[in-house]
Amino acid sequence: MLDLASNDYLGLTRDPRVTKAAADAALQWGAGATGSRLVTGTTELHAELEAELAEFCGFPAALVFSTGYAANLGVIAALSGPGTVLITDEHNHASLIDGGRLSRAETVVVPHRDVAAFRDALANRTRKRALVVTDSVFSVDGDLAPLAELAEACRDHGAGLVVDDAHGLGVLGAGGGAALTAGLAGEPDVVVTTTLSKSLGAQGGAVLASERVIAHLIDTARSFIFDTGLAPSAVGAALTALRIIRAEPALPGRARAVARELAQRLADAGLSASTPEAAVVSVRAPSPAEALEWSLRCRAEGVAVGCFRPPSVPDRVSRLRLTARADLTPSEISTAVEVILGSNPASGI
Amino acid sequence: MLDLASNDYLGLTRDPRVTKAAADAALQWGAGATGSRLVTGTTELHAELEAELAEFCGFPAALVFSTGYAANLGVIAALSGPGTVLITDEHNHASLIDGGRLSRAETVVVPHRDVAAFRDALANRTRKRALVVTDSVFSVDGDLAPLAELAEACRDHGAGLVVDDAHGLGVLGAGGGAALTAGLAGEPDVVVTTTLSKSLGAQGGAVLASERVIAHLIDTARSFIFDTGLAPSAVGAALTALRIIRAEPALPGRARAVARELAQRLADAGLSASTPEAAVVSVRAPSPAEALEWSLRCRAEGVAVGCFRPPSVPDRVSRLRLTARADLTPSEISTAVEVILGSNPASGI
Repeated sequence: MLDLASNDYLGLTRDPRVTKAAADAALQWGAGATGSRLVTGTTELHAELEAELAEFCGFPAALVFSTGYAANLGVIAALSGPGTVLITDEHNHASLIDGGRLSRAETVVVPHRDVAAFRDALANRTRKRALVVTDSVFSVDGDLAPLAELAEACRDHGAGLVVDDAHGLGVLGAGGGAALTAGLAGEPDVVVTTTLSKSLGAQGGAVLASERVIAHLIDTARSFIFDTGLAPSAVGAALTALRIIRAEPALPGRARAVARELAQRLADAGLSASTPEAAVVSVRAPSPAEALEWSLRCRAEGVAVGCFRPPSVPDRVSRLRLTARADLTPSEISTAVEVILGSNPASGI
Repeated sequence: MLDLASNDYLGLTRDPRVTKAAADAALQWGAGATGSRLVTGTTELHAELEAELAEFCGFPAALVFSTGYAANLGVIAALSGPGTVLITDEHNHASLIDGGRLSRAETVVVPHRDVAAFRDALANRTRKRALVVTDSVFSVDGDLAPLAELAEACRDHGAGLVVDDAHGLGVLGAGGGAALTAGLAGEPDVVVTTTLSKSLGAQGGAVLASERVIAHLIDTARSFIFDTGLAPSAVGAALTALRIIRAEPALPGRARAVARELAQRLADAGLSASTPEAAVVSVRAPSPAEALEWSLRCRAEGVAVGCFRPPSVPDRVSRLRLTARADLTPSEISTAVEVILGSNPASGI
């Protein structure tokens, strides 16, 4: 099966260097972390990953969680509360929404990527503290948040900015992610959450922030404190994947180039494809039923594609979601394009 | 360091058979699951673990989550909602509390292990649907919930029962956990959540339930749908650990016997130690400061023990928390007892 459905953007999940690192870590450190990070769940490997990830992304400190979902829950709940308003993009990922629910903060949902609406919400807020919360690369369509403008709005209004860079780490710039690309890395009022399970090919989540914020998360983030630490094999795999990206800084650009090529060829053939800025290509389908049929036909032809339909999309648009791995070959790209076009229920073939 | 602080109850985390299984799974299946279980994140290994875990615990079906925390969030939120009242033991784990917050259900907290209070809350509830939610083995003190009585109360009042068996799986009975021991395994209105990161030495969570409930979770549990699947190495490790427990059914009893011996010897020396029914021993400390000092002194002598103090305890009692691994040797047990007694700040030594 040709995979255009996973989030393995750099093709590192099955890279022999990464799988060997996962295996070695399990053999050396054990199959699990045995307890909370605060009790017995922290190994030297966790500390090493945190140090290298922070340096790579340009932040003073990092904290590894057991999943990206847990990182988002932990950060939103620990940095807000009843005295805070969360101003969130309507297309944000479910884990950010759930973090808001857990936090007991007031939540204001604003139109997608609408900086003026974020500014209005900041200016007219009824609580003293405010956090702007946004994906960097939106997971369904792959479009980018206007991070620099949002950061400026936050500064103007004394608010913090939380960016979920799950689909940006390892993909944007030379891999350091959205905050680095937008010139926001290391800013004291910017907190980045990300995942080790996409570009880094492993499992887990991470937060990049100031030393002060990281210390606060260690003390108060419930999904950090009351959860078993990330298994050493995932930590070791993510660390090796990170080192591969540092050693091969053209990899992220290759993933983006594959995405642009896929989108261009599908658009040239008349499909409504997005113009990708990261490694996600979104192709509109006329209806939920046709999106499903389309994706099943692709699968039957050996090409796995994502199928997103209501209610699991933030708008009401059904689409195929294609991910562009850096290691897709020209022949695989051609096969994918051919199968997607040939499987289109609307084409009448 | 002699470990009496982790949750590695059966000593399987570093068992060569388990670490080899983790390594083999990473090499064969990849370092990560690459996507949500619903998209690309399910391997044959996940299905195999779910089938064997369900059979071992006496339930029709099982579903593996990326963490135990995620399993609890997913189950509570997916099985309740604004029309439900959650009736929860005041000592329940943080992840059950957070599941309740996410669910938007009404929550009634009842006194610890008080069956009459659970019955009252069921009888006087203001919502039609009710779920009783309890740990099986409470994580701090290691005491047991009155599961059979709670199940009877639920049946009498048309309510469901959710049991977090994180500290019971692999420890109670022949390892099949609290529901099996209490004669409740496979009951259609009983849902068990558990973890793969304690007795099974890996990472991840699982839910044991009817086919109908599992299908509902696959469709609606947000922490299942919107999270990358559990990494293959953790799945492989948990599967091998499970097979070891099945092949060596005396292991769980050994962990419980070690706990009883530890507690007895500490009580004989005048400490206020719990009477363990699982593999956790709780030893009261006079104050938070003394608990901390005690645990640090133990650590300096080479024995790692847990230190639980307000606010991370459900009551206001500070204590040392000792976990009794099945593979502790008689000499290690003696060393542990000696160090704990010799490090007691209250003893004036």
